[in-house]
Amino acid sequence: MEMVVTGQEEVKPFNVDWLKSVRGCSQLVLKPQTTAEVSQVLRYCHEKNLAVNPQGGNTGLVGGSVPVFDEIILSTALMNQIISFDKVSGILVCQAGCVLERLNEYLEEQGFIMPLDLGAKGSCHIGGNVATNAGGLRLLRYGSLRGTVLGLEVVLADGSALNCLTSLRKDNTGYDLKQLFIGSEGTLGVITAVSILCPQKPKAVNVAFLGCRSFAKVLETFTTCRAMLGEILSAYEFMDEKCMEVVERHLKLSSPVADSPFYVLIETSGSNSTHDEEKLNNFLEQAMASGLVTDGTMLWSLRERITEALTHEGYVYKYDISLPVAKLYDLVTDMRARLGHSAKNVVGYGHLGDGNLHLNVTADSYSHSLLDAIEPFVYEWTARCSGSISAEHGLGFKKKQFIQYSKPHEAVVLMQQFKAMLDPKGILNPYKTLPSAP
Amino acid sequence: MEMVVTGQEEVKPFNVDWLKSVRGCSQLVLKPQTTAEVSQVLRYCHEKNLAVNPQGGNTGLVGGSVPVFDEIILSTALMNQIISFDKVSGILVCQAGCVLERLNEYLEEQGFIMPLDLGAKGSCHIGGNVATNAGGLRLLRYGSLRGTVLGLEVVLADGSALNCLTSLRKDNTGYDLKQLFIGSEGTLGVITAVSILCPQKPKAVNVAFLGCRSFAKVLETFTTCRAMLGEILSAYEFMDEKCMEVVERHLKLSSPVADSPFYVLIETSGSNSTHDEEKLNNFLEQAMASGLVTDGTMLWSLRERITEALTHEGYVYKYDISLPVAKLYDLVTDMRARLGHSAKNVVGYGHLGDGNLHLNVTADSYSHSLLDAIEPFVYEWTARCSGSISAEHGLGFKKKQFIQYSKPHEAVVLMQQFKAMLDPKGILNPYKTLPSAP
Repeated sequence: MEMVVTGQEEVKPFNVDWLKSVRGCSQLVLKPQTTAEVSQVLRYCHEKNLAVNPQGGNTGLVGGSVPVFDEIILSTALMNQIISFDKVSGILVCQAGCVLERLNEYLEEQGFIMPLDLGAKGSCHIGGNVATNAGGLRLLRYGSLRGTVLGLEVVLADGSALNCLTSLRKDNTGYDLKQLFIGSEGTLGVITAVSILCPQKPKAVNVAFLGCRSFAKVLETFTTCRAMLGEILSAYEFMDEKCMEVVERHLKLSSPVADSPFYVLIETSGSNSTHDEEKLNNFLEQAMASGLVTDGTMLWSLRERITEALTHEGYVYKYDISLPVAKLYDLVTDMRARLGHSAKNVVGYGHLGDGNLHLNVTADSYSHSLLDAIEPFVYEWTARCSGSISAEHGLGFKKKQFIQYSKPHEAVVLMQQFKAMLDPKGILNPYKTLPSAP
Repeated sequence: MEMVVTGQEEVKPFNVDWLKSVRGCSQLVLKPQTTAEVSQVLRYCHEKNLAVNPQGGNTGLVGGSVPVFDEIILSTALMNQIISFDKVSGILVCQAGCVLERLNEYLEEQGFIMPLDLGAKGSCHIGGNVATNAGGLRLLRYGSLRGTVLGLEVVLADGSALNCLTSLRKDNTGYDLKQLFIGSEGTLGVITAVSILCPQKPKAVNVAFLGCRSFAKVLETFTTCRAMLGEILSAYEFMDEKCMEVVERHLKLSSPVADSPFYVLIETSGSNSTHDEEKLNNFLEQAMASGLVTDGTMLWSLRERITEALTHEGYVYKYDISLPVAKLYDLVTDMRARLGHSAKNVVGYGHLGDGNLHLNVTADSYSHSLLDAIEPFVYEWTARCSGSISAEHGLGFKKKQFIQYSKPHEAVVLMQQFKAMLDPKGILNPYKTLPSAP
């Protein structure tokens, strides 16, 4: 196992993000195997004032996981050990570099699953998921990492280890320090191990795919669906016809239902297949839609691979927005009207159940004038609706200057104070998450 | 409405905690109605170096809600306005002084419920619930406040207001500052408003009450129950026979099942009464227990009023412990053996589904020697099992010196740094939560 990587070609994959949208010029990747090694690295870097870029699976979408300049890359790739799993409580403790899909496979063998799932599961690391507070496809059912992460071990900027790796569902002894590291994108400390509450593997999973005549129908179907499926509803995802076109064109997947302006993917997960199917069938009858309950894997592919399909279009301007659900699609319509032919495609999809829209604008290649037409318009639009300009992707390098659209000045100042306190030399993932001081 | 309360008799109820175990000697209670008024009060107190004791419904169990000396009491009693409720998303925004039960009644009319419920619901304030990260009876189903609280408005020690009162399910723009205030027991800021995600009101709620021959049976029943009831299981509470005796003796409630060493209360909440009853009946057949599905209100009374019944015993030494479930009851057995006849009663009950034991020792009156027999034994025992010495009650005044049994030194130091940063003069709820500096 290579613990030190040098050489321009060897380091290159660590310097470029998954979208190929940002590139650093680090000359050194370190891959520690233990928390003690992470401590050693940070202690040295802290002493020598060397900047460090913590990196998990490098699947982030906002340029947070690669260096901006020549930061030393600290990869969790070799920290991939499962530490413990308790079948009674469902609590998993593992190192930060475990790949999400591997963890899920391990758990499935024991009748459990991870509480989160996302398109990048095959390469993302659980430490990176926690550091970016990843949302994903199961949030509607199992809640966010703020509730499911029970403990963390974190190495601070000066190399000291903070052990908050408890395996308890409830612990009210003092401030919940781990929360500060969840979603801090490696700017406050390096997460080295995670304790997480895992739900039982559902005995029955059903997927339905529906066409809807309008976005109003998508919303109406959601309300009906939530009422009739209740506690077994585990995902309510939507996509527009433009998404379907892109997926069909680039990935040769085909829509299982008749062409519609909107599509909805509904998943149920429950403990009794007879009950679940009855609930779903009742719902489908009521919805009187062309829904079919069939091969869920194929249907999920359609949804999960939209991001991938979009990259085939050329350059992708990606926006990950939280909005009140009723207004969710208006942003896509407005953006499409605004950009006209200057964009190749303007598509909208996302986790409707969470109020989360993924707005994507594609073009043959990057253009500054197109960017100017999109931003700050998209952020101003979102701020007017009290939305969030980053629902789940984080701020990273690309969005950090826009934080003020979703957070008041006092909050940003307080965040900067936390950063200064925990990383006084500013060596941890510099130029990320927080705006540069004015 | 009285916004300023003075006079020894008038202030007395605010000076004494619900358990009548601690008493302050404040001479002034202020009851602001708006966030601006809270800001005014804190700005003044900050300037004049006056200590402030934020107080909600004063139902806390660790002496965190009353003054230690003559702190000014800042009561949220008049901040009881509902600001908004959105029926599509289920998001409630309200002032901090709203009483939990009132909120739940308001929501029930609209087909929703609060995600938390606890014995003190008739008088506790939602702001106090959040400040203490209250757990309670619905945590197993709806998760902790760390996941359900979506936004907070907080007034900081210097009187400045921090508006993080978003109504979004997902928002990854910077550090999640609100988490620091959840569970900080009023020591970092005063919570003035809360945004919280509320679940739909279940269409069917069933309660079963079972007797179990041993604690091993309680655990076995839990595993069976979780597998067979799955997603509709909303509570799994246990109590021992000593609890039942106390409830019968002092509250004249009677056990609905034959005398047993242990009792279990199981609640299901679901969207389809036929399915739910079928699941529950299948489970009860399998469990082959003397379970009966009957008047849930009465059964919940038995469970919820244990705390109240215990106060009739005389003095109560209360411990709220998180432990791995398998070891949960060993602590009660060990404590009973240790104390022998020096205690009137040693009882155990709690939220087994969450790994949370409420251990209570009663005596005719307070005795220092009995306390010495219990502490630090109970904390050392808990620390050996990597448990938490306060699962949900917090540390307040009574437990703050024991934080080191559940948190490493580095974590406590970091907490103290946060406290110093946010409240440099130490005016907010002094002598609470964190141990005095050595």
